[in-house]
Amino acid sequence: MIKPDRVKGTRDFDADDMLLRRKVVSKIQKIYEKRGFAPLDTPAMEKWEVLSAKGAGGDELLKETYNFKDLGGRMIGLRYDLTVPLIRYISMNSNLAMPFKRYQYGSVWRYEESKKGRYREFYQFDIDTIGSTSMAADAECVATVVEALKALNIGTFKIRINNRKIVEGVLNYLGIKSKGQVEGAMRTVDKIQKLSRDELYKEFKSYKISVEQAEQIINSLSRKGDIKPIVAEMKKDISMNEKITEGLKELEELDSYLEASGVLSECIFDASLVRGLGYYTGNVFEAVLEGKKSGSIAGGGRYDEVIGLFLGKDIPAVGFSIGIERVLDILKAGSKEEPLTEIFVAVVSQDLLPVAIKLSEKLRKKGKNVQFDLMGRNFSNQFKFANRIGAKEVWILGPRDMAKGEVVVKDMQSGKETRKKL
Amino acid sequence: MIKPDRVKGTRDFDADDMLLRRKVVSKIQKIYEKRGFAPLDTPAMEKWEVLSAKGAGGDELLKETYNFKDLGGRMIGLRYDLTVPLIRYISMNSNLAMPFKRYQYGSVWRYEESKKGRYREFYQFDIDTIGSTSMAADAECVATVVEALKALNIGTFKIRINNRKIVEGVLNYLGIKSKGQVEGAMRTVDKIQKLSRDELYKEFKSYKISVEQAEQIINSLSRKGDIKPIVAEMKKDISMNEKITEGLKELEELDSYLEASGVLSECIFDASLVRGLGYYTGNVFEAVLEGKKSGSIAGGGRYDEVIGLFLGKDIPAVGFSIGIERVLDILKAGSKEEPLTEIFVAVVSQDLLPVAIKLSEKLRKKGKNVQFDLMGRNFSNQFKFANRIGAKEVWILGPRDMAKGEVVVKDMQSGKETRKKL
Repeated sequence: MIKPDRVKGTRDFDADDMLLRRKVVSKIQKIYEKRGFAPLDTPAMEKWEVLSAKGAGGDELLKETYNFKDLGGRMIGLRYDLTVPLIRYISMNSNLAMPFKRYQYGSVWRYEESKKGRYREFYQFDIDTIGSTSMAADAECVATVVEALKALNIGTFKIRINNRKIVEGVLNYLGIKSKGQVEGAMRTVDKIQKLSRDELYKEFKSYKISVEQAEQIINSLSRKGDIKPIVAEMKKDISMNEKITEGLKELEELDSYLEASGVLSECIFDASLVRGLGYYTGNVFEAVLEGKKSGSIAGGGRYDEVIGLFLGKDIPAVGFSIGIERVLDILKAGSKEEPLTEIFVAVVSQDLLPVAIKLSEKLRKKGKNVQFDLMGRNFSNQFKFANRIGAKEVWILGPRDMAKGEVVVKDMQSGKETRKKL
Repeated sequence: MIKPDRVKGTRDFDADDMLLRRKVVSKIQKIYEKRGFAPLDTPAMEKWEVLSAKGAGGDELLKETYNFKDLGGRMIGLRYDLTVPLIRYISMNSNLAMPFKRYQYGSVWRYEESKKGRYREFYQFDIDTIGSTSMAADAECVATVVEALKALNIGTFKIRINNRKIVEGVLNYLGIKSKGQVEGAMRTVDKIQKLSRDELYKEFKSYKISVEQAEQIINSLSRKGDIKPIVAEMKKDISMNEKITEGLKELEELDSYLEASGVLSECIFDASLVRGLGYYTGNVFEAVLEGKKSGSIAGGGRYDEVIGLFLGKDIPAVGFSIGIERVLDILKAGSKEEPLTEIFVAVVSQDLLPVAIKLSEKLRKKGKNVQFDLMGRNFSNQFKFANRIGAKEVWILGPRDMAKGEVVVKDMQSGKETRKKL
């Protein structure tokens, strides 16, 4: 005998959780498929050499990755995201039609500090378009997530959009070029909308960036608003280099496709957006709920160089991932699922159980969710159970009514009783 | 750069696999829910002390169980079935309404010899009714699986049914009482329908069971057919002890509820059925396809003593598990899923892409699955791609037709072209 417990950071999902989850996943799934993203599933276990390959998640993630030797002595890990398995899949299936557009809903495992909203086993829900350099692919990812979030009725949201080339271009222009300095500066750029000037100066300083440089970075990258006018403004105000020019051109193209998709009003250009992950190379996206401090509920972008690092052959890619756990937490707070059982068939005495079963089968054939007594309970305890599981109606089988070929139907909400022919 | 590969015994599921899987799972799910089984999901990772607790899977399974220390030094394993997590869940939620009827579809992991049809990561699909001793619960499990297998159109099948108490009773009556001898004899009883008399004698002998004893076992337990007449026959022919009497009484009760459920014609009593798992205590069930040597496609039974071993408190239970991987293999052989994409919007020149996007959005709003070119391909290569992904129609956007407010729609099967207003 043991004290039964779950592994820390893992969850059980009861009927309510599962019904909400299924509703949400199936809504999103339908939208993804309508837009040409096809389902893919990959195993939980991947070879360690795949998970730790150059171009994969990197050292930070590997530190959090569950790994073990299988009984044959081979190193195996549990996947920490759905992108590395996707890349592994692409590399094993060289004859896929391009673009390869797939979605995947599945759990991933990370040994993270376990706190509210952080799990060690949690779900991700990704779309990715592989093989296309077109900004229309980026726009399609954005439009797809916009449609999905709208369908979920999760509240007013905006898709923040930026292009990493502009950020890098501005930094490069100011002489900030070493990998460490650029990465550090990018982390601070991402906070331009959140921190005070002084705080920003201080952070930049820690990466050996002077107040003068910092000022220019902040002035260039504080812009926020509709894509087209801000791109025009930046073209006028900012000294151009190749990277900035390219980034702005990509944004202009993206804008035209977003407009054609009818989602421009949900999008906002934010020149300070960087996103945490190191591997983005072009556009980056992030969905945020308005008026809520809930952080982002979806994130993504273009990563044209990752697959190349991994495979030794360049393949462009863009993706967008809905933070499905956060979305479910938000939706769960505002909803209660309907109980599954519609009808409970109660018997006045246990010898009527076969009749109850026959009646249940008849009602189930009509599509009703029906249960009957399996506990040998007396009549009043059957009612208590029916009430507890939220049955809408109790159909009562008693010998006198049955002699008349009738059954009494009690509406559990109103308490009203009616008679039906058996 | 690495040679990317999967972990042995694991699979990727492409769109075809996923669409079939989803169709099958959702059909079964609907039937389970109509019968009052509610969804439950539990984590992949369980504490090792849970997986290895007394009453759980036992030594043989533990040898095949993936396990590892997490970074905090705690022993963790990947679940090898869905029953142990269910028991752990019940023990952590002491106020569940009884009976607790749940279904679970999820992957499990076992380090098995990897051969065709054997995977190291595979799915199980279980129903279980916890807390009821009623034979109506057993009948409901059988009726539920019968309805599910019928809905899948998998072919003609039978549910083989037996009661372990009869087998044990017959062995006990002949003086076979030690655990080792009983378990060995049971394994051989399970082969009564498959092996010759001589082979059976030989196997029985290895458990120190004489030819005379073996003959009596075989004569008593070779019976096969409708439940009611065979129970009557056994009552007349076989020397009774308490266990046999109890087993036959349970079967009679089960029979009456199976009849009420309308599934008697799918059921067959087979007095030699034992099923592999050690923990069954009463009725055992097994679904087999007729005329095929595919083995069982579903298995289950009553296990009233397992939860008690685990929890130190007796809770009766009965379950039935569909061998979903085998079922999918059989169904896959006979089907090909419809391609997802219905319409591909082709452009005569790339500057028309925004128009293609607008049109696609319009068609998607009407519920159509639509794709457009993301590769900057010329017209003929767009057609090749549309063909490759199995699009039913290609809508062609060209400047001349568009000037007339028209689009040409090509049916990819017939090759016929029609014009539609844009």
